[in-house]
Amino acid sequence: MKIPKLTFGVVLFCFQVLLLALYAKYVNYQTIPSTVTSSVNFAQTYPKFQDVHVMIFVGFAFLMTFLKKYSFGAVSYNLLIASVVIQWSILLNQWIKQRVLKEEGHYGDKDPLEINLGLMELMTADFTAAAVLITFGALLGKASRLQLLCVAIVECIFFAINETILVEYLRISDVGGSIVVHLFGAYFGLSVAFMLRNSGDEHTNESSVYHSDVFAMVGTLFLWVFWPSFNAGPLTDPVRQNRAVINTYLALAACVATTFMASSWVDKRFKLNMVHLQNATIAGGVAVGTSADLMIRPWGAILIGMLAGILSVIGYTYITPFLNKKLRIHDTCGVHNLHGMPAIFAAICGAIAAASIKITDYGNEFADIYPKVGSGDRTRGEQGGFQFAAAVVTFAIAVFGGLLTGAVLRCLDSPDELLLYDDDNEFEVPDQFISIKTESNGTSDKQQYHMHEQAA
Amino acid sequence: MKIPKLTFGVVLFCFQVLLLALYAKYVNYQTIPSTVTSSVNFAQTYPKFQDVHVMIFVGFAFLMTFLKKYSFGAVSYNLLIASVVIQWSILLNQWIKQRVLKEEGHYGDKDPLEINLGLMELMTADFTAAAVLITFGALLGKASRLQLLCVAIVECIFFAINETILVEYLRISDVGGSIVVHLFGAYFGLSVAFMLRNSGDEHTNESSVYHSDVFAMVGTLFLWVFWPSFNAGPLTDPVRQNRAVINTYLALAACVATTFMASSWVDKRFKLNMVHLQNATIAGGVAVGTSADLMIRPWGAILIGMLAGILSVIGYTYITPFLNKKLRIHDTCGVHNLHGMPAIFAAICGAIAAASIKITDYGNEFADIYPKVGSGDRTRGEQGGFQFAAAVVTFAIAVFGGLLTGAVLRCLDSPDELLLYDDDNEFEVPDQFISIKTESNGTSDKQQYHMHEQAA
Amino acid sequence: MKIPKLTFGVVLFCFQVLLLALYAKYVNYQTIPSTVTSSVNFAQTYPKFQDVHVMIFVGFAFLMTFLKKYSFGAVSYNLLIASVVIQWSILLNQWIKQRVLKEEGHYGDKDPLEINLGLMELMTADFTAAAVLITFGALLGKASRLQLLCVAIVECIFFAINETILVEYLRISDVGGSIVVHLFGAYFGLSVAFMLRNSGDEHTNESSVYHSDVFAMVGTLFLWVFWPSFNAGPLTDPVRQNRAVINTYLALAACVATTFMASSWVDKRFKLNMVHLQNATIAGGVAVGTSADLMIRPWGAILIGMLAGILSVIGYTYITPFLNKKLRIHDTCGVHNLHGMPAIFAAICGAIAAASIKITDYGNEFADIYPKVGSGDRTRGEQGGFQFAAAVVTFAIAVFGGLLTGAVLRCLDSPDELLLYDDDNEFEVPDQFISIKTESNGTSDKQQYHMHEQAA
Repeated sequence: MKIPKLTFGVVLFCFQVLLLALYAKYVNYQTIPSTVTSSVNFAQTYPKFQDVHVMIFVGFAFLMTFLKKYSFGAVSYNLLIASVVIQWSILLNQWIKQRVLKEEGHYGDKDPLEINLGLMELMTADFTAAAVLITFGALLGKASRLQLLCVAIVECIFFAINETILVEYLRISDVGGSIVVHLFGAYFGLSVAFMLRNSGDEHTNESSVYHSDVFAMVGTLFLWVFWPSFNAGPLTDPVRQNRAVINTYLALAACVATTFMASSWVDKRFKLNMVHLQNATIAGGVAVGTSADLMIRPWGAILIGMLAGILSVIGYTYITPFLNKKLRIHDTCGVHNLHGMPAIFAAICGAIAAASIKITDYGNEFADIYPKVGSGDRTRGEQGGFQFAAAVVTFAIAVFGGLLTGAVLRCLDSPDELLLYDDDNEFEVPDQFISIKTESNGTSDKQQYHMHEQAA
Repeated sequence: MKIPKLTFGVVLFCFQVLLLALYAKYVNYQTIPSTVTSSVNFAQTYPKFQDVHVMIFVGFAFLMTFLKKYSFGAVSYNLLIASVVIQWSILLNQWIKQRVLKEEGHYGDKDPLEINLGLMELMTADFTAAAVLITFGALLGKASRLQLLCVAIVECIFFAINETILVEYLRISDVGGSIVVHLFGAYFGLSVAFMLRNSGDEHTNESSVYHSDVFAMVGTLFLWVFWPSFNAGPLTDPVRQNRAVINTYLALAACVATTFMASSWVDKRFKLNMVHLQNATIAGGVAVGTSADLMIRPWGAILIGMLAGILSVIGYTYITPFLNKKLRIHDTCGVHNLHGMPAIFAAICGAIAAASIKITDYGNEFADIYPKVGSGDRTRGEQGGFQFAAAVVTFAIAVFGGLLTGAVLRCLDSPDELLLYDDDNEFEVPDQFISIKTESNGTSDKQQYHMHEQAA
Repeated sequence: MKIPKLTFGVVLFCFQVLLLALYAKYVNYQTIPSTVTSSVNFAQTYPKFQDVHVMIFVGFAFLMTFLKKYSFGAVSYNLLIASVVIQWSILLNQWIKQRVLKEEGHYGDKDPLEINLGLMELMTADFTAAAVLITFGALLGKASRLQLLCVAIVECIFFAINETILVEYLRISDVGGSIVVHLFGAYFGLSVAFMLRNSGDEHTNESSVYHSDVFAMVGTLFLWVFWPSFNAGPLTDPVRQNRAVINTYLALAACVATTFMASSWVDKRFKLNMVHLQNATIAGGVAVGTSADLMIRPWGAILIGMLAGILSVIGYTYITPFLNKKLRIHDTCGVHNLHGMPAIFAAICGAIAAASIKITDYGNEFADIYPKVGSGDRTRGEQGGFQFAAAVVTFAIAVFGGLLTGAVLRCLDSPDELLLYDDDNEFEVPDQFISIKTESNGTSDKQQYHMHEQAA
């Protein structure tokens, strides 16, 4: 179906007006007492919220600028998608959660549609945006802006359903959202990508230029630096908060080391690959997410980080090409390697931690982490089973939701093959569009050197 | 008058020595008790201060790097201007405020020239820098460094006078400084620009290259992300603080949606324009500034944000060319669209909010927001009138100050027409200055495609 | 000795496994009570920690991206080195400190090898990374990744020894680590550089392109903005914390002014040099580091900042070429000007402050700042002597450690002369490596203009 180009603006505007109407009817501010405790709460939460906010709007945005001709799209659509999602998911996440609480009788006479906003709701909205942006990473450069908008609107619904199932029914612990956010977002995105046309051939636009790779490192580094705030974000207990920060810090550092090692080894000339350094270096933050606030000990965090880096580099080298060629799933940013597999690994670690770490290793915080075990309704082993089941459920909902969304997208125009990964399609680009030529002087020297080196 | 090139350094050095002398005579640290309350205050204020600091020194700096040959100037003079302004305005802002307090008898025996520095004074200095940097945005690439330095020094005086009138005499509420900072800085800058030579023709240097537009997004995104800290910056009451964060967050998200809509609609091929995405997306933060801590309800914030985005895109498309061609006011960064008009809109929203929101909608914080209404000296309607009057007064002082400053600037050399928007004028640039050519391979494909598309 | 290229990965992996084993045996979390005080502590420290974290991993990384062909190396090896160092130095710093405490009998029955991690240990690890990254700055582009890894591993040992001597034996006050971090890192790096081959000639790759200079400003600005958090980082007393923030803020602002002045004056055409603006503008943060929390008064901070900017520009203009030509010490980033000399200046300021500021100028915090003076074991003058002695000791240890490390590095392959400052050596670079040509259209206009100007 040929959709007129003004449709994007129409849909966007109508949806924004709908949001306005829903907020007018249902949303108000939380009532906060003017006490020192409120000030301490604000002081504890706000900096973490702002760190997460930077990750979503700067980190994810720049991480995706690596393509030579799609940096505008990466950085702009990241902003658009996240802005729509945060408004929309504040409603959905609270409505579905409050509806369940109401059914369980924990919500008294209050209208489950009424929402009272506080900082924590904003942070949860940012987490939801992370999931949708991971999905965007899988689709980068291949979907039109109208398609991306549809994905954003639909994915939030599945996200809220899945989150509520995990938190309210399965009662799992997933502080850093590795299952809720990363696993969900990645497999949702891969499923959508599966439904989009894909020739399986490498596209001439699908590569970087020197400075686009440097821009991508802006994203990588802000994600890397603030990931401890992401994994400790929802926590207010100082004990768990400290643990989450320390574990994430160590896992990320260890992950960098194994990423550099693996990246040099998978190349026959032992050269480092910027794609690995941009992405696999932060896989440790995903992998430690589920167990960040648990008593996994610092060495546990380091081990998880080490394995995540290796897993992610292997993914980029062997699994992404396989998915593309054999399963026709084209994953532009490699979200399967940065989010998908490390999140599955995180779920396994979380299950093992639940089953194996003794209650006595914890203090009073144990009952907060695993309320069902604390209340005696589950054994630790059962909790481990539920933790893993959460990953399976999330995978199923993500794939189902993604395929459905992908089917919807097929009703809309996709960019023409020739205009994939090309900003010129939907953006006004500078008159003199970027020109990158093979370096003339430098190379001749270097080629001579290489020839000389090979001869020696 | 032909000014020798070393004058810039001489003036700068002399002024810095003057600052040194004034600080030696008048400035000391605030006395803070070593208590938990002090720690909580620090913990509450410092992260917001640092967010604002990033906005001023990273956000504004990179937002202005979009010109293909003036990125050095943008990022460097931003740093210079802000550094001079924060030192100078700490003195001026306090002196003028303390002088007024003294006159009103609220200052006891203390010397009104003596300044005791705390975090809040640093944050106010950063806000002053924001105003001067907005002015810089209007002049970007057209004024010499000596002229910019003069603007910075003079503008601070008018800023401090205007701020004191608004806060101490008119007693208005403008938490995010939309009137005090944005309205003032924008119209001051436009007035200075009016006094500078302007041919009205488009300059060949006045355009972007691909990566300069991506650099500008670094600025946009840090401004966007930290704007809640800007609007909540001066607050310590947890109730108002939370409201300011939530309202700004929502207004900005809504503003992004309408900016994308409007940007695609104003182009005949429905393409998005990076200038809009870099600037109009943050107009919501300006527009909600005056009323950020008021009971405007979340939908109110969203509505304000939506209108700000549309207003700003319309400004870039229709009003900036009009100002340039008809009024000979050349506005390089379009500060009229990002700061000027949204700030007027903010003032109107603030006036409406003051007049229409009932006291019973607030808690105890009402008397802090509108002390004159709280004490019964004014009705709500009168407060609304004062709120709007503040915008008129600010406009008048800004235009007067700007024209005067512009007249002074005309006594100094401006860059030659040929060297406008060109770093080569005042910076050592790399031997091989950037070369951006039309892409040869890629384009031919695309041109064929476009021709094919048009034929079909 | 010809080292096979896979060695880098092998060494890195083995070292990471060693870290894992050591953490498994010795490291656990600090026990924190679940109280409001813990929350306030977290809220006070965590934002400063995150600011420092940004400085190390984003600030230093981008500051070094200025070379036209070594931006990948700068930003990637910065991440690698810092990640290895933070894991390794957590162990070393605590072990050596706890061993000394044990010897002095302050450690009871506890095993001095056992480490309990909290936020403060993470921040100290980040400070250690700063020192090693300063060293990296001196070696940028000249050392292979294996050599860099060796430097990182070895330097941490000398760092921990030196820090313990200064803090536990000499009992000096150096809140911002100007001596412990900057002086140490700079002279260690220069000593290593001295041991590396250096032709003394300018290398064709050792220059910037337009956008690499803009990338470097990302680093500069984040360092500049967050430096107050660096200098106030270890503090929890609100009095000293506020003072450290205010002094650093003012010193940096003043430093910017004199840097612009000096940079324009040292050029015969009075043009500004981006190298100065990228580096000398932050020298004020180094120079005020040792005395940031002292009663140096705001004007003292401004004076220190002013002198630091001038000193640093003079260093870049006259001393770096001298060191390179005469002493064969090649300092790629000019760390001698940004860190070395300003740190010596900081040490002198710290000594003068200790000797000259009266106890009565302080409140109760005096005894925390100078415990030996507070307890009556030293006079103020003696403390000043110790402060200066600390700089001498640090210089000696840094030079000794650096020469030794440099000697070890000579056993490993260095990059071939032709491949210095070139990412192609160790990274996969985009097929079309960046090409920067002299601008064709623009220049002809400008050349005509310049010719015209000279003729006039």
